[in-house]
Amino acid sequence: MTIQPLPAFEPPYVMSVFTSVRTQDDSGYPETLARMIELVGDVPGFLGYESARTPGGLGITVAYFRDHASMAQWRQDLEHQTAIRRGRASWYESYTLHVATVERSHGFVRADT
Amino acid sequence: MTIQPLPAFEPPYVMSVFTSVRTQDDSGYPETLARMIELVGDVPGFLGYESARTPGGLGITVAYFRDHASMAQWRQDLEHQTAIRRGRASWYESYTLHVATVERSHGFVRADT
Repeated sequence: MTIQPLPAFEPPYVMSVFTSVRTQDDSGYPETLARMIELVGDVPGFLGYESARTPGGLGITVAYFRDHASMAQWRQDLEHQTAIRRGRASWYESYTLHVATVERSHGFVRADT
Repeated sequence: MTIQPLPAFEPPYVMSVFTSVRTQDDSGYPETLARMIELVGDVPGFLGYESARTPGGLGITVAYFRDHASMAQWRQDLEHQTAIRRGRASWYESYTLHVATVERSHGFVRADT
């Protein structure tokens, strides 16, 4: 499978940027992450997410939603709220969350040569 | 130096999210990246940037500006425009740029134990 950035969606849409540094504590993390990806996929208006992490360094996860109502539904999900609490207790040294409305976007894909 | 996410700034501010997959072509890339970091630092209203790349995979770079005028000044910088053209010609398989206004943000830092 070729890795590709998600395409530009039709503005306006909303996105959350979650920048984080992990602890060494991995207990329960992969399972919870997989469960969150499964759950958020069921939220109406969820457009997609993408994530990158420099080994031993910063991670950045971006999630895209059609509107604020859709993002709010995800924020209020009870399993998600439990995961956020576990993240603060165990998995993250530090994180910042930026919530924004996207006003314009565009993409580039190299032409096959 | 301890790696930390940039802190939440005082909303509203603007951010660009640049998601990308690189080509194998690294010629001139590190020098240009260093020059761009130097140049953007001189733009009034530039708040900071952060970047993560999964090895062999997706890269995500987020840049933060005080307002759209500040971001526009950076977008119109002639050296930056030349770098964008070189990026399309050589360095990127594909990328997407999302430009947004941040309406709220918050951060978490683990208490020392």
